This record gives sequence, C-alpha cells and structure tokens, in this order.
Amino acid sequence: MTDSFHPPVRTLMGPGPSDVNPRILEALSRPTIGHLDPAFIRMMDELKGLLQYAFRTNNDLTIPVSAPGSAGMECVFTNLVEPGDKVIICQNGVFGGRMQENVERCGGTAIMVIDDFGKPVDLDKTEAALKQHPDAIALAFVHSETSTGVRSDAEALCRLANVHDCLAIVDAVTTLAGIQLEVDEWGIDAIYSGTQKCLSCVPGLSPVSFSARAADRIKHRRHKVQSWFLDTNLVMGYWGADAKRSYHHTAPVNSLYALHESLVILQEEGLEKSWQRHRQNHLALVAGLESLGLGFVVEESSRLPQLNAVSFPESIDDGAVRAALLEQYSLEIGAGLGALAGKVWRIGLMGYASNRKNVNFCISGLGNVLNAQGHSCDVSQAVAKAEATYS
Amino acid sequence: MTDSFHPPVRTLMGPGPSDVNPRILEALSRPTIGHLDPAFIRMMDELKGLLQYAFRTNNDLTIPVSAPGSAGMECVFTNLVEPGDKVIICQNGVFGGRMQENVERCGGTAIMVIDDFGKPVDLDKTEAALKQHPDAIALAFVHSETSTGVRSDAEALCRLANVHDCLAIVDAVTTLAGIQLEVDEWGIDAIYSGTQKCLSCVPGLSPVSFSARAADRIKHRRHKVQSWFLDTNLVMGYWGADAKRSYHHTAPVNSLYALHESLVILQEEGLEKSWQRHRQNHLALVAGLESLGLGFVVEESSRLPQLNAVSFPESIDDGAVRAALLEQYSLEIGAGLGALAGKVWRIGLMGYASNRKNVNFCISGLGNVLNAQGHSCDVSQAVAKAEATYS
Repeated sequence: MTDSFHPPVRTLMGPGPSDVNPRILEALSRPTIGHLDPAFIRMMDELKGLLQYAFRTNNDLTIPVSAPGSAGMECVFTNLVEPGDKVIICQNGVFGGRMQENVERCGGTAIMVIDDFGKPVDLDKTEAALKQHPDAIALAFVHSETSTGVRSDAEALCRLANVHDCLAIVDAVTTLAGIQLEVDEWGIDAIYSGTQKCLSCVPGLSPVSFSARAADRIKHRRHKVQSWFLDTNLVMGYWGADAKRSYHHTAPVNSLYALHESLVILQEEGLEKSWQRHRQNHLALVAGLESLGLGFVVEESSRLPQLNAVSFPESIDDGAVRAALLEQYSLEIGAGLGALAGKVWRIGLMGYASNRKNVNFCISGLGNVLNAQGHSCDVSQAVAKAEATYS
Repeated sequence: MTDSFHPPVRTLMGPGPSDVNPRILEALSRPTIGHLDPAFIRMMDELKGLLQYAFRTNNDLTIPVSAPGSAGMECVFTNLVEPGDKVIICQNGVFGGRMQENVERCGGTAIMVIDDFGKPVDLDKTEAALKQHPDAIALAFVHSETSTGVRSDAEALCRLANVHDCLAIVDAVTTLAGIQLEVDEWGIDAIYSGTQKCLSCVPGLSPVSFSARAADRIKHRRHKVQSWFLDTNLVMGYWGADAKRSYHHTAPVNSLYALHESLVILQEEGLEKSWQRHRQNHLALVAGLESLGLGFVVEESSRLPQLNAVSFPESIDDGAVRAALLEQYSLEIGAGLGALAGKVWRIGLMGYASNRKNVNFCISGLGNVLNAQGHSCDVSQAVAKAEATYS
C-alpha cells in the first residue's frame, strides 16, 4: 500500500515553480464546482479582466490555457502558423530552440537569428533577417530567457516586427508581473506566460493573449488548427464574452481559483509596485552574492531581476552545493540549462518569493555552504551589503 | 478592484467534475516543491505505480498527461497516428466524434462506424469495418460514453482489434475506478482517462497508458509527433523509470499531489469494491427515479452506474428543473449533450459522490422540484424504494 504524500517545506528560489503564496494554496483547495456553473462563469469573466490588467491589454482573446507554459507556447504557434508559413525566431537560450520545434511541427519554416546564451537578442541581426525575408508572417522571441536570466528589448523588437508587417510573438513566461510588459502599447500580437513564475501560483496554466489582427488570422485560417485541444476557435466558444459557454473541455476548476487569487493579490499590490519589488530584491541579492565572490553571467543592463544566472569559480562543485542547500536549508536554487549546464546557478526571486527574507536566507545559506566546502567567504559582510541596499 | 472568489458549496452529480473528497482538496493545497526535487521524483514513481494499479496494467508508459482528458485523447492520437494512417472509429455519442476530429487533424483517415446515441457500439458492424479495411492501424472506441451513459463491450471490441492486427485505443475518461477495466487482460494498446470523474480528483489531468507495442510504434515513427507538448518520446525523458529526469515542461505539481491522494484512497478501498459501490448506488438511484416516473435512455444491460441518462416527459421544462435544483438545493445535475440536448438529464454518481446520501438527496430534491413545477410524484415512496435496495 502506498501512503499519502507529504512534501517537504522548501524555499523555492530556482527558475520556477516559485514559492506559492499561502492565500493561493488556500484558494486552490476551495470546493470544486462545475465548469458550467453560473458562479464559475462569473469567476471566468473576472479572471479575463485580471489577466488583461496583468498583460496591460484590452485584447478580448485573453485567457488561461488549461495546461503549463509549454502548452501556451504551442497554443500560440499552432493557432497562428499554417503549413508553409515562415517565422523568424530569435534564439538566445533554450526556449528559442523550443519555438523552432513548434514552428517546424506546424509545418512552418523557422528562420533562426542566433545569439549567444546570456546575451540579449541583437536588434541589427533581427532587422537584417526581417529585410531578407519579407514573406515572413511573424517574428518570435523570448522576452525573459529563463535559461540564462537575460532580458531582450521587447519594445524595440515588436516595433521592428510591426514595421515589417510581421506579427510579434512574445514568450513572457518569466516576464509577467516581474518586469515591465505592455502588450497593447508595444504592439504585441500573441503572448503566453506561466503561472508558476512571478505570479507565484501553482504550475499548470498558461495565460495567453492575442491581438485583434492575430485573432482575425486564426478565424480565417486555410487549414484547421492541428491541435483540437488548443484550437482557440473552439476554446472561445467556452471562454468568449458573448459565447454560448458551450462545453469544449473540462476547465481545471481549482487551478483557475488559484490563478484568480494570484491576480487579485497582484492587483492589490499594483503592477508597477510588483516590478519595483522584484528590482529592489534583485539589487540586494546582487550586492550579497558579489560580496561572496560570485559573478553574474548577464551584463547589468540586460539582467532579469527575477532570474539571476550566477557564475562560480570552476573549483566549486555545482551539484554538491545545490544538494547541500536542499538538504541543510531546504532551499532550492536552479541548475544551469542547455549551454550553461554545470556552469551557473539560476537563482529566482519571483513573485511571492521575491522578498527580503529570502534574499538574506539565500546569501547566508550559500555562503555557509561555500565555506563548509572550503571556499572561504565572509557571510556576515555579504548579508550586510545586501541589507544596505534597502536603506 | 476584484475580490477573492469564494465558490458556493455544491453537490456535484453531473457528468463531472464530481464532488472532490476533502482529503484530496487538502492534498492539493500542500506546499509546492520543485518538479525536479528528489522528493517529488519519488512521488512521481509512486504515482505511476498507483496508476498501473487503477488501470490493471504493467505498462511502463503509464503517466498522467499535464492537462485535462481532451488532451489525453489528443496525446494518444497525436502519438500513434501518422499522416495517411487509417483508423476505425466507433461513434455512439459525442466523444467518438471528437476522436474523428483528432485523427483527421493528425493527417489520418477516420473510418466511422456509427451507432445511435444511447446504444452500445455494435460488434458486427465493427467487425465488418475491420474486414473491409485490413490496412487500418487502429480501432478506437469510447468505453463509457459520458454523453449518453452507455457502456460498450470493451473486452470484445479489443479482441476484435487484436484479431485484425489493429491497435486497440480506448477512451476511459468516465470508466476508470467506476466499472471494470482490464488494460492488460483485454489487450488495450492505448487508453486515456480523466481525474474529475470516478477518481473524484480535481479536473486538469489525464492518466494515459500505452502497451509495449504502442510505445514501440511511437519510438519508430516516420514523422515527429506534431505536438511538442504531448510528444511522449520527450515526456518520457522526464517520467521514464530509467530516464535522466530531464526537464521537458513544468509538471503541475499540486494537481499531481491531488491525483496521488485520490489513487491512495482508491487503493485503500480496493478497485473491485469501488466498482461494487458504484453499482449499488446506481441501483438505488434507478429504483428511486423510476418511482418518480422518470425513465432511462440506455437499456439495462448497457447502463453505466456512474452516469445515468434520465429521460423525462416532454411537458417538463429541462432548464427550469436544473435551475431550481441548483438554486434551492445547490445540487448540480447535467444537461443532455449533442443529439440528447434538452431531452435528458445526466446524473452522475462518480467516485466520492457515489454514496447513499447523494442518492437520497437527488431523489428527494428532484421529486420536490417536479412537484413544485406541477408534475405530481410521491417523493417519500421514491426515497423508500431507493433505500430498500441497500438492504
């Protein structure tokens, strides 16, 4: 017989999931009701409004996909790309590569603009690709690369896309609520995010939003969307404001309660204040970790406050440090991914987890583990440096 | 400003979601941990074992898809069907039609064997189709049609598929834990289910299982699976027993806690006892509703105990009755779907919701509402008839 599972209590400072606000866990466990219940329909309408607030958009097609961020990515590409379509993809980390997979599996052609892991997307190279491929239907890029902690200039990239009559497709999985994002003002046509990053909600849902011209393109496709489950033409029969609320698939009711609560919390704090908080705690973390002798992969102007790719001397045993943090401090930080595997730690300060207590805990925990493993550093001084940034 | 959402407390006796066991809601709200945490990996291994128990299979490729049952269906078809493949689909309700959509969107050809809504799949017609299409690669059917409450003879259909060298693909969304299901003994090659039916878990996940020969077919596909998110070749890099647990997508951690708990509860009760309980409460409901003057769409030998399609005189206002039950009793029963829309109620007795209290509550609530709307019936007698079946 298998017993009930009782997870350990962690502090989650990896690339996500991040620590979930207890209010959200409580909302998650509220009584399940039917996905066609009038009370649930009202909640869905509120949820759309809250997502529009978080995305800064008036897009009607703004909904949570009933599956994790990877499915949100697939939802965007499978709805917008038809066989033979050409899409320019900027890749500067793991997730740009995933976009390529998506476009190709939709029967499209991916034109890749490659930058090094840890560098933002190069605007000149992107513009050159747009000029070279005037028949491209879309430009796609990752705003916040979770694999490297780098921010690209989404506003400028969207402007380029719009000038060249391309749809602007943006991966905002790690962006939403963590740094500035302006879906309408920047001219974003399709965007997807995740719930388990700066919204501090449980993993499993992916908020998406499509501009009117993107929605129009989907309505007038030449072929059916290859995914029945992700076909927004069908999904909007349930989620649409003037829809008949006709059954498509059973909505993940409780997860949607949780997302609703996370967005209510975001609205209470205010979006700009949430961005500021992420920035402030990031600066404290930087001060502390630099004091411990650690470095940052990304140059200062492009660093994501919510996801810090931290480099360490080669003599340090990556796995041993992370294991010690987990075992002795119940603290999770992330390993490197792709080209940065084994070379960096990814330290997240996302959503609810972006707070002063976690910054201090991470600096002191990491410092103590480094000392224990023979890499001498002054922990008290590092914590003091971090603290000083708050005053 | 939007306030937190507090759902009403319902009794869920529709086609799903069903009432969720409070133990499962509590498990859902346990602290989130990382999807690569060693404790989480151990939980995943237990979960696979528990799913094998529920499916009665030793299939290694037995996992929960990170999205609702519709995505489980798509996972099965998108992995098994390649462009040009022919699949025989038995349709006797709404969900057979959805299978057709899936096959066609994968570039396959669907050969339809059609039966009336409310009738089980006809074995002779199916055999004839298998003989007529020796090049078909699979036979697909719905074991428990949630739209009509009919059970088809899965064992016989799988035997036919196997004799004709076809993969047997089974929709078991409403089956699992409600009626007998023998994945290995019946020779099922691919099966998908849902969590929000007889497992009484929250909606949002879809347990699937593939036989060795189905898994082998997926490994040796000519084309990539068109869905990156649902590609089991990639997913098993994370879920596989001897896999590197490499990151594919972020697992819906808390929903998986809930599924684990629901399966622990199932194991405590015992699978056969769960089937018996569904049968017993069904018989009580039948006795009570017939006493109220209501009928059953499906003939007795093919009725699903967990989902009852109940017919009513034309003079009864379908919507008014359901609205009154929801408003006065906070009791949800389901409307008809597809060809049966407006003609039947679908009354679920699924999982935790399949209990004596709910049977009595539904009979008395429905009887009282019918009386109030001018359709005279003897409620006390109906409840007594139901009660008598337990002794």
